[in-house]
Amino acid sequence: MQDQAVDVVGVGNAIVDVIAQASDEFLESQDLAKGAMALIDEARAHELYDLMGPAIEASGGSAANTMAGIASFGGTASYIGKVRKDQLGAVFAHDLRASGVAFDMPPTETGPATGRSLILVTPDAQRTMNTYLGISSLLEPADIPAPTVEGAGLLFCEGYLWDVDSAKRAIRLAMELARGAGSRVALTLSDAFCVERHHQDFVELVSGPVDVLFANENELRALYGCDFDTAIERVRGHVGLGCLTRGENGSVLVTDDDTVEIKAENVGPVVDTTGAGDQYAAGVLYGLARGFPLAEAGRLGSLAAAEVISHVGPRPQRPLNSFL
Amino acid sequence: MQDQAVDVVGVGNAIVDVIAQASDEFLESQDLAKGAMALIDEARAHELYDLMGPAIEASGGSAANTMAGIASFGGTASYIGKVRKDQLGAVFAHDLRASGVAFDMPPTETGPATGRSLILVTPDAQRTMNTYLGISSLLEPADIPAPTVEGAGLLFCEGYLWDVDSAKRAIRLAMELARGAGSRVALTLSDAFCVERHHQDFVELVSGPVDVLFANENELRALYGCDFDTAIERVRGHVGLGCLTRGENGSVLVTDDDTVEIKAENVGPVVDTTGAGDQYAAGVLYGLARGFPLAEAGRLGSLAAAEVISHVGPRPQRPLNSFL
Repeated sequence: MQDQAVDVVGVGNAIVDVIAQASDEFLESQDLAKGAMALIDEARAHELYDLMGPAIEASGGSAANTMAGIASFGGTASYIGKVRKDQLGAVFAHDLRASGVAFDMPPTETGPATGRSLILVTPDAQRTMNTYLGISSLLEPADIPAPTVEGAGLLFCEGYLWDVDSAKRAIRLAMELARGAGSRVALTLSDAFCVERHHQDFVELVSGPVDVLFANENELRALYGCDFDTAIERVRGHVGLGCLTRGENGSVLVTDDDTVEIKAENVGPVVDTTGAGDQYAAGVLYGLARGFPLAEAGRLGSLAAAEVISHVGPRPQRPLNSFL
Repeated sequence: MQDQAVDVVGVGNAIVDVIAQASDEFLESQDLAKGAMALIDEARAHELYDLMGPAIEASGGSAANTMAGIASFGGTASYIGKVRKDQLGAVFAHDLRASGVAFDMPPTETGPATGRSLILVTPDAQRTMNTYLGISSLLEPADIPAPTVEGAGLLFCEGYLWDVDSAKRAIRLAMELARGAGSRVALTLSDAFCVERHHQDFVELVSGPVDVLFANENELRALYGCDFDTAIERVRGHVGLGCLTRGENGSVLVTDDDTVEIKAENVGPVVDTTGAGDQYAAGVLYGLARGFPLAEAGRLGSLAAAEVISHVGPRPQRPLNSFL
């Protein structure tokens, strides 16, 4: 294992969130599956945006949110993802760097616009995402800087990346580099529909290079086609650490010889669930990177998730190191 | 008086707000006057942005915020202001239209970028604004559509527009058109430093074409150089209706033969004062347009202001017609 100066490097789709309130009737009228992430093309992005209510823009992207959370805990994090040289690309880069995350990739001068996700938050605080990937989908192996990956103790990858072939190759390369450097590889399944779209790939990853897996109940069901308790045992056989979340019922951390139940935390009324899984991962990964006991790493995950769902937007507003 | 289908038309600088939390020490280190609006050039905008924390973007612009508030009350409003054909320009236009405000001005194909204001919110919820006007500063008389101005019962103009010569001419034209159509002319002084920069202009406007004046204590002091009570009498001699605000101490509505005290309202903890004056104006103008008694128009102004300071961002999140 090399000398690793950075706790975690994240790889993902660089996305700016466009967040509006919406009614359940609006989701139905637009045929949107509540709670899911759907990929949309540019034409549909314009169409849906025209129909949406007034919005706010906040930098997002699952792995980028997680890296911002790790930095907020006081950890060191870097990020790999692709933005265009445009106004939303500048917003994404500013917010990530201002959060304390190293982000060295220059914006591209050509190609589609910076990616964005049109997020509809219903009165039950559930978020429904409609993502136009834009330039983020053009991540390719040449974009993966070996020293950045090899210089981190943990590599964290989004399942969302599996929607694009070149990104998939880029991630496989990053995973090889990480393992070659003696680093741990973490993966989040991201979305049940995403798991269904790329089922075989995910099965191979989980039984192969992945050391740490993040998944919620729906994603586990999509992966294994069985109930939560059975899935726990499947995960135990596949990865070193499974971090399995169940929303308000907390989460379970699963290793070869241990099962740690973590309860959900409460830091105020639930306003917008965007980023809950991302910030849970931030807490757990920070704890792992710093060698905390599993129960403490899980508690930090629950606290970070609770903080981010207490307000609009996918990144912490309160410094997460206040929970340490 | 013509048949006027729209309650209020607003003219102002079309601005997207970039809102970040900041400490008092940061304001001091950057030599920023707390609570004020400072104009900055593009180079300084980049420099300050690089130093700021993570931000969210929300459509702003004083008069545009007021029009969004009037629409939220259920009133009809239209807006005149200039954006560039870029991502922030699309955000501005979308949010205004999605709020129900008519905004027909096409984005310009050339020129500087859409204007933005870097807003620093300190722990006391006070906002300090640093505005790069961009294309919004190129508003000129040719941009004022006579039918739009003549078709509204009230014209509402920002004092901020006085910072640019061509915009000043555009506003004078709009005021002439409004008066010619038998419409009332409303003006907000916007900012004490702005009043100091253009003192003679404002004195002439207030004693000339302006029927309805919005001003806070600092702006009145800048205009008349006297205390609040003395300023009330000066205002009474100059305009048909003076709407004079005193923050948490409420406001006073002043006419030739009446003085109506309005108390401040409370709808939750104060989070971000951005947009307080704009939404106060929205409530009062909506009430005037619909012929409500002054005390009721003032109460709507106080309620709208209280709503907007209870969350981040300059426009209402809760529909303001819930206060009717």
